[in-house]
Amino acid sequence: MSYARQMLDTYSRTFNVDADVLAAAIDALSDCVQACNADNAADLSEPNVTEMVTCIRLCLDCVDVCAATAGVIGRQTDYDANVARPLLEACVAICKSCGDECGRHAPHYEHCRVCEQACRRCERACQDLLDALK
Amino acid sequence: MSYARQMLDTYSRTFNVDADVLAAAIDALSDCVQACNADNAADLSEPNVTEMVTCIRLCLDCVDVCAATAGVIGRQTDYDANVARPLLEACVAICKSCGDECGRHAPHYEHCRVCEQACRRCERACQDLLDALK
Amino acid sequence: MSYARQMLDTYSRTFNVDADVLAAAIDALSDCVQACNADNAADLSEPNVTEMVTCIRLCLDCVDVCAATAGVIGRQTDYDANVARPLLEACVAICKSCGDECGRHAPHYEHCRVCEQACRRCERACQDLLDALK
Amino acid sequence: MSYARQMLDTYSRTFNVDADVLAAAIDALSDCVQACNADNAADLSEPNVTEMVTCIRLCLDCVDVCAATAGVIGRQTDYDANVARPLLEACVAICKSCGDECGRHAPHYEHCRVCEQACRRCERACQDLLDALK
Repeated sequence: MSYARQMLDTYSRTFNVDADVLAAAIDALSDCVQACNADNAADLSEPNVTEMVTCIRLCLDCVDVCAATAGVIGRQTDYDANVARPLLEACVAICKSCGDECGRHAPHYEHCRVCEQACRRCERACQDLLDALK
Repeated sequence: MSYARQMLDTYSRTFNVDADVLAAAIDALSDCVQACNADNAADLSEPNVTEMVTCIRLCLDCVDVCAATAGVIGRQTDYDANVARPLLEACVAICKSCGDECGRHAPHYEHCRVCEQACRRCERACQDLLDALK
Repeated sequence: MSYARQMLDTYSRTFNVDADVLAAAIDALSDCVQACNADNAADLSEPNVTEMVTCIRLCLDCVDVCAATAGVIGRQTDYDANVARPLLEACVAICKSCGDECGRHAPHYEHCRVCEQACRRCERACQDLLDALK
Repeated sequence: MSYARQMLDTYSRTFNVDADVLAAAIDALSDCVQACNADNAADLSEPNVTEMVTCIRLCLDCVDVCAATAGVIGRQTDYDANVARPLLEACVAICKSCGDECGRHAPHYEHCRVCEQACRRCERACQDLLDALK
């Protein structure tokens, strides 16, 4: 069981979203940060780094947006929908763009294949949380 | 002149937004991160910390969202509007919420008055960039 | 298997530290960020928040230091020992301080007990990586 | 006057370091984050990106370490010297490495020249704070 799930189980705050959906999103965001951090570092080590520039940029954007989203939704500031909703939408969009770009390199680079999986899972988990917020 | 403006002046990439609007947003985001970091630390030192909990939470959210937005818009990943737009919307929303909450404490705490100003300026600068992206 | 371990397995860069030790540190850092983010949010929800101020501050410091360390050691910038070593030392120190403070609240708050575990594990994993760098 | 200096002037906490030295460090760290974020983005746009890989990696490390250090020293968690000192040492080291690497590219790229200045100033400001902590 992840720390996110354990913490939510011990936490006295009343949720206005399902704890399983929230914990799944936090876990997927945390893993996506880890994968995108590793993938842009791996891209920078490839001989054809010129062809990996878009992938590097998107991975860096994905790290920034996913880390911020994990912080905000974990903090549960009474889920101001005006903040949480567009933030999750930005997250879904960057995970899709980054996952698509990693997917293009996946046949050549195993690190991009693994990163694509992390992005796809994060995109779904954030979309599930968005649906639960509505 | 800020580093953001100097950097944009030296940068070979073709912008699809006005460099002044972009530099103003990056500067305001960077200052807002600084102010909200300082304000939540100051709130935690006040004797009536219980009454400052909402302000602390909102400042922490504001740091996370503004830092991520500064990274993404500074990186200019061909401004995927699906990412930049909701991210800037989230930024406008949290700067408004955080600025309003700081405004409530401004009569009592000078640090909240200063933070309110940083949030209001950041809200406007992000809204201006949003308008320029359209 | 974590994303960190999978990524290291696919990564063409030659390591100057054992991949298991490195992956264990990245995983522990990532989990510690998650736990400390959740714990300070939980602390802010407790009725006796005044008594939790030190725990909140230390958790926020721990998030900042662990997230930066995960980025730097994952990026493996030829492990400039002048950077990686003091950064890991700072990480060991904040994980110890934060783990100790969470330990004091662990009898009363399950969320602090879980966070203490994450901090202790991260302290050990960063110490192991420090030892491997020497 | 920067937000950091204004905030410190309004802040009831008793400092154990000179407020000018602390504010100068926070400002320099915040500017260095901004410059290194912009410089690695600019590097990624250059046609000879292969030659800029070390500069990109070091800028990314510098962003991570400087942002974390700004958070921790701004929070003033009773300045646990075991945390603040190695963190500032890591900051001095990465600002030196990144400034040196940017300096190598400064004759060719104005964005690296500007970033070098931000790194040098941050290195000095963090060293000054380190000296003040002793």
